[in-house]
Amino acid sequence: MIDAYTVARETGMGTRTNTIMQTCFFAISGVLPREEAIRQIKLSIKKTYAKAGESVVKRNYFAVDQTLEHLHEVAVPAEATSTHRRPPVISDEAPEFVRSVIGTIMAGRGDDLPVSAFSPDGTWPTATTQWEKRNIAQDVPVWDPAVCVQCHKCAIVCPHAAIRPKVYPEAALAGAPEGFKHAPARGREFAGMRYTLQVAAEDCTGCKLCVNTCPTRNKADANRKAINILLQLPLRERERANYAFFLGIPDIDRKSFDKINVKNSQFLRPLFEYSGACAGCGETPYVKLVSQLFGDRLLIGNATGCSSIYGGNLPTTPYCVDQNGRGPAWANSLFEDNAEFSFGMRLAVDANARLAATALRGMAERLGEGLVDELIAKTADRSEAGIEAQRARVSLVRQKLAGATDLGAKRLLDVVDYLVPKSIWAFGGDGWAFDIGYGGLDHVVANNRDLNLLVMNTAGYSNTGGQASKATPVGASAKFAAAGKDIAKKDLGMMAMNYGSCYVAAIALGARDNQTVKALLEADSYPGPALIIAYSHCIAHGFDLENGNLHQDLAVESGLWPLYRFDPRRVAQGLPALQIDSTLEPKADILEFMTNESRFQVVKKADPARFETLVAQAREGVRQKLALYKHMSELVLPVQR
Amino acid sequence: MIDAYTVARETGMGTRTNTIMQTCFFAISGVLPREEAIRQIKLSIKKTYAKAGESVVKRNYFAVDQTLEHLHEVAVPAEATSTHRRPPVISDEAPEFVRSVIGTIMAGRGDDLPVSAFSPDGTWPTATTQWEKRNIAQDVPVWDPAVCVQCHKCAIVCPHAAIRPKVYPEAALAGAPEGFKHAPARGREFAGMRYTLQVAAEDCTGCKLCVNTCPTRNKADANRKAINILLQLPLRERERANYAFFLGIPDIDRKSFDKINVKNSQFLRPLFEYSGACAGCGETPYVKLVSQLFGDRLLIGNATGCSSIYGGNLPTTPYCVDQNGRGPAWANSLFEDNAEFSFGMRLAVDANARLAATALRGMAERLGEGLVDELIAKTADRSEAGIEAQRARVSLVRQKLAGATDLGAKRLLDVVDYLVPKSIWAFGGDGWAFDIGYGGLDHVVANNRDLNLLVMNTAGYSNTGGQASKATPVGASAKFAAAGKDIAKKDLGMMAMNYGSCYVAAIALGARDNQTVKALLEADSYPGPALIIAYSHCIAHGFDLENGNLHQDLAVESGLWPLYRFDPRRVAQGLPALQIDSTLEPKADILEFMTNESRFQVVKKADPARFETLVAQAREGVRQKLALYKHMSELVLPVQR
Repeated sequence: MIDAYTVARETGMGTRTNTIMQTCFFAISGVLPREEAIRQIKLSIKKTYAKAGESVVKRNYFAVDQTLEHLHEVAVPAEATSTHRRPPVISDEAPEFVRSVIGTIMAGRGDDLPVSAFSPDGTWPTATTQWEKRNIAQDVPVWDPAVCVQCHKCAIVCPHAAIRPKVYPEAALAGAPEGFKHAPARGREFAGMRYTLQVAAEDCTGCKLCVNTCPTRNKADANRKAINILLQLPLRERERANYAFFLGIPDIDRKSFDKINVKNSQFLRPLFEYSGACAGCGETPYVKLVSQLFGDRLLIGNATGCSSIYGGNLPTTPYCVDQNGRGPAWANSLFEDNAEFSFGMRLAVDANARLAATALRGMAERLGEGLVDELIAKTADRSEAGIEAQRARVSLVRQKLAGATDLGAKRLLDVVDYLVPKSIWAFGGDGWAFDIGYGGLDHVVANNRDLNLLVMNTAGYSNTGGQASKATPVGASAKFAAAGKDIAKKDLGMMAMNYGSCYVAAIALGARDNQTVKALLEADSYPGPALIIAYSHCIAHGFDLENGNLHQDLAVESGLWPLYRFDPRRVAQGLPALQIDSTLEPKADILEFMTNESRFQVVKKADPARFETLVAQAREGVRQKLALYKHMSELVLPVQR
Repeated sequence: MIDAYTVARETGMGTRTNTIMQTCFFAISGVLPREEAIRQIKLSIKKTYAKAGESVVKRNYFAVDQTLEHLHEVAVPAEATSTHRRPPVISDEAPEFVRSVIGTIMAGRGDDLPVSAFSPDGTWPTATTQWEKRNIAQDVPVWDPAVCVQCHKCAIVCPHAAIRPKVYPEAALAGAPEGFKHAPARGREFAGMRYTLQVAAEDCTGCKLCVNTCPTRNKADANRKAINILLQLPLRERERANYAFFLGIPDIDRKSFDKINVKNSQFLRPLFEYSGACAGCGETPYVKLVSQLFGDRLLIGNATGCSSIYGGNLPTTPYCVDQNGRGPAWANSLFEDNAEFSFGMRLAVDANARLAATALRGMAERLGEGLVDELIAKTADRSEAGIEAQRARVSLVRQKLAGATDLGAKRLLDVVDYLVPKSIWAFGGDGWAFDIGYGGLDHVVANNRDLNLLVMNTAGYSNTGGQASKATPVGASAKFAAAGKDIAKKDLGMMAMNYGSCYVAAIALGARDNQTVKALLEADSYPGPALIIAYSHCIAHGFDLENGNLHQDLAVESGLWPLYRFDPRRVAQGLPALQIDSTLEPKADILEFMTNESRFQVVKKADPARFETLVAQAREGVRQKLALYKHMSELVLPVQR
């Protein structure tokens, strides 16, 4: 036995235990003589990590040596005497399919399932990650109500939807577990209400992004914030109960807000939770935010890549449903056709809405002229109140036709839901949008239909091992660009802007969360194509992701990643379509950004002279790009009067 | 028998005899009763041409009626008494392969050929259209030396390379056929030399573009120009002899010119001739011009489409060779991968040049240090003098290694030609570049290698029957956009400019031939990717192509087709990369252009109100595009000092 996490922590390996566990295996398995095995492990460490620097190699050597000192033999008794029982794989409260099918797969016995256990149409239930309690975090954030200002910057960056705020009337506290934390809700609109920021301790991955993002300081102890990291195990039982109680408190009415901002966006329930993405993932906060803003009327076509893996990694699925049972419909398509695939969803929804309108008109007498006219007239109202009213009209149709067996009624009921506005999105990474699927993305952008495209840009092929894409910045090392990329990155946004009919935004949630929320709302409201290019930090960049937001901030401040929104609707108002949302005068040199991430530093180490050249190229590239952006943001187009 | 061409001409059908021949068939074949057949033909005419307007229908009716009046029976005698013999399919002077293989196919007996008649590597000889004398023109242009100013506007627009100028010493006239025309060569550099503008009467298609382009007027008769149209048949024998003599006059030395312009570009021998393109084709003049400028060191990858059909329609091939036997190497690839395919040619040429350099260095002692150093140093000199000098060095290597049997020498001789600079081009239409092959085109543009992309933009899928592409302009009718396209056309050039590392030009040979020549030369000289988007009128536009240049001119003057050149080299000089070469203040309304072509007029006829809306949209689109271009042409980027 070994307490590998303690060894890892104490040898400076953080939470990485691979070297330690490998050492254990070779130390006791007898595959090789012990001394020879250790020598080979150290040779292998040198080979693997030499590029990352001498200190990494030494740290791994140290971990190997400490492993041998902390490895203990435990005698196994002849018979078991403990009364402690292994918890069930799946809770008894889970739905039947989750227990019988998903649970069987999770227990490693999937091959025993008959084909008849699965849905014949190939669909798979959503909202099932909630039944897989992974408990992978060593440490989890803990809320301090006394310090918290309720800004929700922690919740919006959480990649796993594991930290959530609620605001509710005092009465909802009835039956709360002992120690369930709450505070008076801040803000005039919540006067007299209570507030809780709750961590899902069993679902948290311990990435620490929330803590590092928290802007408040405990005045009594400057090292402490409104959320602080504590060991998970002692808290697990208590926080499990607290989280269960928290989930039972009703969600806020979506119509509560005149305007959605960072703070109140986080009161909307995430309909994407506890995915299998890396701890600290830079992509999933965008997915989660889209699910909060539009999740109850959302269709997603997902390109192959990280987002298709964590978005639908069976047996469990992270997309889930709200208290009314509404949630995103999701399907994965190929790298090379996802824009078209999602465009097909748009065409299908529109076609069904037209069928519904035709069917309604044919039944106007039976349903009432007023109801039919309103249903058809209000298909474009995307306000929360408008959507609720339209849903009520659809319900009324269902009520009036309850029990009807005629073909006309059946046909209408099949499609009447399509009269409620849908938000249709294509999700994918830069490998999809900049490279392999770009031809299709361009075609979809050119076709002027209401479709939103979210590109989670990690500047490389993350899921397939870090190959260079056309989004990879100058100076970065990547597979097929190991010596450091010397070609400028493609400006997908500017290329889409050229159509003049596509909403385009570049965002970085970790740097400017308010601009991110604004851009997503504008994209959904825009009645044509909308392209959102989202800066996404990634393990492939080579830094500890708990600092993801600092890196995003530096990307923006150095001018590597200008933030903007290009809204064609502004042209008719005599305004420039392009608005720049970040500085046009870099506040940090690009070298500072490049010094911060090992994807650049390996280039410097391998060839310092080349690195200098690439830094100069990158610096000029940034200056020229900002000059172009400034110039474009000054362009006012003539309009017909 | 019927003289269908005369009937066509006299009934206003121009050279279109399909209705006439069809009428003949039904009138005498007895397939249907004669009266019934004629009635059905007229019904079919109404159905087919109603969209094109009442006058077209009436003209066809008239042709049908006139056909019946001009159809004569000729009694066939019991035995042939004529001594007139059918000329051979292929001249006896043709090479063996052309006579035995191509000739057999042309005679309709291709199935008789054994597999062994063909090259096992799948290649096909070039320069074979010269052996297929089609004699399809009713009328051909005839030169008037007394009026001609030797500007060569006629030669540059000729789609079939059937009108050619030469300048030569007086002595070259020895043995000229009687009536071979010549005049003193104009221009100081040709003082004392003779000049001939010769028509290939048997290869001309009679499109009349040359005559309509000729800028001179005969002062004695304002209806006559420096070239005039006459019936071909009476001239055929004489002009065959004249053209044969003309071809025998040596071509001018390519080093004769300090600078290539419209006039002297036409002294360079076209290495693309007598293709099967439509009479009056708007694409082939570009192909011919590229072959004149770079043909002796040209490699072409050709996307599927018109240009792959007329570029390699077996059994004959229009790409040909100069008097030294050098000419383009050509291959056809798919719609969806031609940019990558051509990029592969670049990579292969570069790899072979590197192999040659390595092999040379290893043989420096044997070949001489000086020769080896020069060969390696001069691979980038693309001046005609530089190319000639490099070819001489390669010849010297061949001489020195003549008879060598060692592997090193053989390997070098395999690749030494690659040290002479090559000009590598991808050819295709807008269906390739804007749509189906765009993903690959973009990837190639992003990869910063020296490759030239020529997009012959007919604004639709010409070869497959006129489907809309992303290049189709607002208001045009096309398949899949029959009601008139209501989405703005894609601005491929501006999207490529965004990389900042690609040379881009929009050209229109029929409107500004000098700008076309300049852009092609700049593209070849640019050491990175170059994209040329060439306005190409097409039969699918619905007008008589003899007026192609007038339409191109109006496209430019109305602002539909701004001409520009974007040269990244200018940035380092502190200049805007983008230069606009045409007016930014439209000199004609877009409606004038749209009134001129039936692709727009069918929309007006079908739905006048929609047409009005589309005209307004097109007009605003033009104004906004020109404003954008003006703005971009004012952008000076900061450069590192």
